Order: sequence, then structure tokens, then C-alpha cells
Amino acid sequence: MDVAAYMAELGQQARAASREVARSSTAVRNQALLATADALDAARSELASANRKDLERGRDNGLDSAMLDRLELTPQRIDTMIEGLRQVAALPDPVGVITDMTYRPSGIQVGKMRVPLGVIGIIYESRPNVTVEAASLCLKSGNATILRGGSEAIHSNQAIARCLGLGLRAAGLPESAVQVVNTTDRAAVGELITMPQYVDVIVPRGGKGLIERISRDARVPVIKHLDGVCHVYIDSHADPEKALNVAVNAKTHRYGTCNTMETLLVDQEVAEDLLPLLAQRFREKSVELRGCQRTCSLIEGVVPATQEDWQAEYLAPILAVKVVDGLDGAIEHINQYSSQHTDSIITENYTRARRFLTEVDSSSVMVNASTRFADGFEYGLGAEIGISTDKIHARGPVGLEGLTSQKYVVFGDGHIRA
Amino acid sequence: MDVAAYMAELGQQARAASREVARSSTAVRNQALLATADALDAARSELASANRKDLERGRDNGLDSAMLDRLELTPQRIDTMIEGLRQVAALPDPVGVITDMTYRPSGIQVGKMRVPLGVIGIIYESRPNVTVEAASLCLKSGNATILRGGSEAIHSNQAIARCLGLGLRAAGLPESAVQVVNTTDRAAVGELITMPQYVDVIVPRGGKGLIERISRDARVPVIKHLDGVCHVYIDSHADPEKALNVAVNAKTHRYGTCNTMETLLVDQEVAEDLLPLLAQRFREKSVELRGCQRTCSLIEGVVPATQEDWQAEYLAPILAVKVVDGLDGAIEHINQYSSQHTDSIITENYTRARRFLTEVDSSSVMVNASTRFADGFEYGLGAEIGISTDKIHARGPVGLEGLTSQKYVVFGDGHIRA
Repeated sequence: MDVAAYMAELGQQARAASREVARSSTAVRNQALLATADALDAARSELASANRKDLERGRDNGLDSAMLDRLELTPQRIDTMIEGLRQVAALPDPVGVITDMTYRPSGIQVGKMRVPLGVIGIIYESRPNVTVEAASLCLKSGNATILRGGSEAIHSNQAIARCLGLGLRAAGLPESAVQVVNTTDRAAVGELITMPQYVDVIVPRGGKGLIERISRDARVPVIKHLDGVCHVYIDSHADPEKALNVAVNAKTHRYGTCNTMETLLVDQEVAEDLLPLLAQRFREKSVELRGCQRTCSLIEGVVPATQEDWQAEYLAPILAVKVVDGLDGAIEHINQYSSQHTDSIITENYTRARRFLTEVDSSSVMVNASTRFADGFEYGLGAEIGISTDKIHARGPVGLEGLTSQKYVVFGDGHIRA
Repeated sequence: MDVAAYMAELGQQARAASREVARSSTAVRNQALLATADALDAARSELASANRKDLERGRDNGLDSAMLDRLELTPQRIDTMIEGLRQVAALPDPVGVITDMTYRPSGIQVGKMRVPLGVIGIIYESRPNVTVEAASLCLKSGNATILRGGSEAIHSNQAIARCLGLGLRAAGLPESAVQVVNTTDRAAVGELITMPQYVDVIVPRGGKGLIERISRDARVPVIKHLDGVCHVYIDSHADPEKALNVAVNAKTHRYGTCNTMETLLVDQEVAEDLLPLLAQRFREKSVELRGCQRTCSLIEGVVPATQEDWQAEYLAPILAVKVVDGLDGAIEHINQYSSQHTDSIITENYTRARRFLTEVDSSSVMVNASTRFADGFEYGLGAEIGISTDKIHARGPVGLEGLTSQKYVVFGDGHIRA
């Protein structure tokens, strides 16, 4: 198989389809989503048998149990995919929204219209349900998609792709509006990320290694999420009860998510009072603490932290703890070590809250709230294709709007420039 | 000189300065802009003598008269730079604007805050006034800047840089908030566009060759403007008087600008009536017409157009003319050949205007208005760092807002995720 030629063909078809999708009505795109949901529901046994093939091959290839778990399409996960499609269909359509129409002194009227990006390339790893999630958000926002899932999920992804094709056809949209790459050749990724003539943006979903590789080699803009080294800073003017609750929730609500706190910063003025209480709460949850020198001197059983701990995304019951000199020390530490994902201050002090909001350069900055809220659903975006730690285009949770941009529209009445 | 080490040092200083600029108040940034204006005014003779050096060397190196003209800092151009700084100081500050604050069912309040991008790298060619224009827009929007002008303007740019340094110092901002690269070594550009750790976005300004090269090699997001192949489509339901006026204005108001019409499309239903009138108007202005077969059969003295003409950005008194089959033919031609800069329909028909607005995928789409209006000043942005023909982040004229992004802010009262 000539992978370059194959990918170029997918690209051409996607570009052509993107025009049709962009001008389709909200109702038509919703119809495609709902028909896909029905197709998935009707194809449960086909999905299960395709998934079995992937699981068997995965076991033969020695995938670990965590990977096999992510790969599995249980009936509940199929339910979730179906439910997800219906939820996306119910979301408001961002496409075509016109805002900011104003008259200019020349007499022209100028505003902005929200438009699809065009063709979105999605590169992801083992979870086949991402195929439906990503395709549905791209389609709802008027884009065509090329999806490149993990090679270990190829049969499952192809079975899901057939359902998407049925849904698109039922709505009268071109099936090439959603294309799943049908080769496991790694060269396909290299092609996908270097076809700016066919692909407008790449959204990689997966481990940091994958995303770094893609960002390095891409010739197409990438909306990416690298890692989540999130902080909670307990200020000396914090309400101790709020501080304890938020810190514990931010760390222990879920360990494996990118918005989980990885480093706790405590103002030295309250460290002596609060650290023992915090240590006790974390000990109850079996969270290992790794502390700076001052932390180690105030509480027992803390592993001394090394330089690596300040930049670690543990995704595990481990927490780095540092005593800092007030707000300035906290901001300095965060701007040096944070991955610019989500950082929160706990304080009752108005001026410090305001400074933290302004000076911490992260995609989500919070006051008296758990970092775990940094999520498209919690923010009311309805859905989320990922969380961007980039600075241009979109920061933080990326929903439908993040898959669109705005063009200028100008209304005149024969106006010419003087 | 070790260019890589030198550029890394500029990068580190810019990153550090960007934090200070980002948290500075509107008043302080405006003060720096106004003090720079005063410093330029006081340094007229210094600017003139630095510029003389560049002009002499340029003459010795055989620069053509157009390049020498662009290079020259006349007293009027210094006036314009000073006036520009005062205008930028008077613009509203986009930084810190909070919008869309809403309460979520969880009780948290979520919104967006507009924030600087961080460090912006500007790469441009011979005109030294770009140094002031670009630096002022970046500073106003809370960013640090590294400017890399053309080697032929190095003395002028260094003299301008000294004035910027004086202005920054007068306002108590770090001088490294605006740094002008002081080497003409081309390797400096290569370094600047591959330091994502220090530079958040690159804005190249110059010829298509420069911009293509930078886009290809950059490891940092690029906000770019490639070319302007703009269209006016005269629909069969056009008001003939508006059609003639807009077509003539779009082509002849200025020939060398990116928002000048390069191809005129005429619906075949009205081609026989309108083309002779159009040809006469263009002949009066000495515009050479290059037409499709049908155009050549309807009017005399037209050069037959080749495939290249449909993608040409003439920037000259030359116009490609094509007779198309209605709106569908026009949209098809535009979506194939347009550089997605600016395209306009002339029509009195509501439904066709609406379809054109929706289906033409360009950064500015107009109805009954001259493409020449596609400009930051005409759109009311106050100023413009360039026009983006990209799809993500910013499309069309890029003003202060295009040099910022939005982060999420979350207000809670000890809220934790359930």
C-alpha cells in the first residue's frame, strides 16, 4: 500500500466533504448524529465481534491489563457512546452565529461569523470510543474529520466507522465527512500531520510522548494538551476548612486526570498550623507526600522532594508539598513549574485573589475551588475534545467553539473606499 | 558571535519581561508608548543619521529605488510613527477583560479573561517604521516582543530601539520587553522561530517567499498572511451601478495592497451587458484585462487568461476576468482559487447574498462592498499588525485582540467536585 497516496486521497475527500458539511444545516448535522446513534445501537453484535478481534490480538501481543481495559467496548461503553451522540445533537450549533455587527464611519456594517475550521485530524490511542466522541464534535461544529486511532483498536474503529458512515448517509451528507484511517502503518500519522493543503488542524489525544512527537513534526497547527501539573496555593488568609476540603478534593477525587493537583503550595505563615492537618487527611487517603525542606521539618513521614517532583505529573496518590513565602513565592513557583493547565488559590483576601487571577498564566485560574472543575462539562461547554495548554486559538477545555473560528462579514450598499 | 546563545539570551530576557508587562497596568503601558513617542521626537537627528548609514550602504549594495524608498525614514514618516504611538496609547486595553461569567449547577462561577500571548517574535523586511508599529501593538496588548528587521535597516532599527528602551524605562518597565535583534546573521531568524520555550507566536511581515520559508521551518505557531487573491463576483441580480463602482474601486483604488481585487467574476446572464461597460471603465484606468474564453468573445483587446492568471496576485494594473455560471460557478471558482483573504458579491438578491456569506470560506466575505475595506482601521480595530489568512486563532485583520487569548477564570467559595 502506498501510504502517502492513500492519505492524500483521504485528504482530498475530506477537503471536498468539509465544504458540504460547512454549508449543511444544523438539522442535517443533528440528523447524522442521531442516525449514527441508531446505527451503533443496531450494530452491537458487530461491534462486539470486531472488538473481540482487537482484544484477542492485544492479548497475543502482550498488552497489559490497563490497555486491554481501555480497548474494551463493553455494552455500557456502547450505551455511553450512543448517549454521547444524542447529547451532542442537543447542543446549540456554534456555526453561523454572527456577532458584533457595527456600523463604521464609512457606512459599511462589519461583524464576525463563526465558521468551521475545515478538516480536523484526530490522532489518538487505544480507546475506540474516542472515534465517536471526536467525530461527533467535529461534525456538529461543521468540520470534516480524519481519525487515526491506535493500531490495537483497528477492528473496533472500523466497525464504528461503518456506523458513522450509515449515519452520514441517512442525513444525505458525504460519508467522507468522517474517515477512519484503515491502515496501521505508522507512516500514516506522518502524512496526516504534514498535509496543510488538506488538513487545517490536528488534535492529538494520548500520552505526552505521542503529543510531543506530533507537535515536533507537524506542518499543520496542533491544538494540544501536554500535561497537567496543577497547583493549589493555600494563602495565609485562607479559610482553613475550605483549604483542607479543596486540597483533598483536588488531589484525591481522581488520581489519573490531568486536572488533579500535583503540587500543594502552603504559605509559610500558616504552614505550621495547616500542614499537620493536611498530612493527616492525605494519610487517611494513603497519599504519599514529598516535601520541601520546610515541609519535612514541620510534618513527619514526608519523603524529601527532588527537583523532579516540582515538575512531576504523578497521576497517582503522590503529592509534592512546598512551603512558600507568601503570594509572590507561590506565583513564582507556579509560573516556573506549572504546565499552565489549572492552578487555584485558597484565600479570603480580595487583593491576593485578584493578583493570583491576573498573574498566574495558566489556562484555568481559580479562587477557592478545586482544580478538578477544569473540564468542558463542568464549565458548561456541553462536551470537550480536549484541554489545550497552548496559548493561541484556544486555552483550557476545548468544546465546539474551539473547533471553529470567526471570519469577518461586511454588509454594504455599493460602498467603495474613498 | 554565537548566534544561538545570543538568541537564547534574548528569549530568556523576553520571557522574564513578558511576565512584568502582562501584570503592568494599562496606564503604565500607555505611559511607555507616549514616552517612546517623545523619545522619537527628541531623537530626530539621531534617527536621520542612522538611517543615512543604511541608505548609503543600501546604495552601495545596489538596492533598487523601491527598496531604498521603503528604507527611508523621512521626517513625515517619523511624524507618522509618533502619531501611531499616540493612537495606540489611546486605544482600549484588551488585557484583563472578563466576559461570559456564568454560574454552573455545581455553584462555581466560570468566565473568560483576556490575557496576553506572552512573547511575540516579529520578522519583517526593509521598512524600519514597522519596528515601532509592531512593538507598540505588542506592548499595548501586554506582550514582550523580539523584533528582527531587515539587515538593510539595522542602523535605523537600532536607533528606534533606543527610543523604545527610553520609553519603557520612563514607565518603569523592563527594557527587554522590546528587543531588536542586533545581528544581521540570518541564523538569528532560524533560532527565533525554533524557541517555543521563549517565543509564543511568530508574526512574519513581508513577501510570500519569506513567509513560506518561516511557516515551513517554524516550531512556534505563526500568524501569517500569505497572499491576497481577492474576488468580486457580479451576480445577475446586481445593481449595475453598484457593480461597476465596486469593481473599479476594488481594483484601482490601490494596486499594491493585499485587499485589491485580482479576479473579477461575472455571471453569464449579465456578462454581455456589463462586460463592455466594465472594460471601458478599466481601459480609462489603463488596467490590462486577461479573460476567459467567454470574456474574450464578448469584449475586445483582452489577453487570453492562462491557468496562472486565476491564482495570480498581480499587485499591478492587471485584472483577470471570468464569466461564470451563476452563484454556484462563482463559489466554486473562489473556493478553488481564492487565497481566502477577501471576496465580495454584488447582488440585490437576499438568498444569494446569504449563500455567498455562508459558503465562501475566506477571512472576509462581503456583500455590495469593495474588497479594499478589508483592513484593521476600516473594521474599527484601531490598528492592525497584519491580516491573517490562517484559519485558527485569528482570521482577517489582526488587531490588539488577535495578540491576546482567553484563559478561564473560576470563582468558588470552597467548592469541591462531588
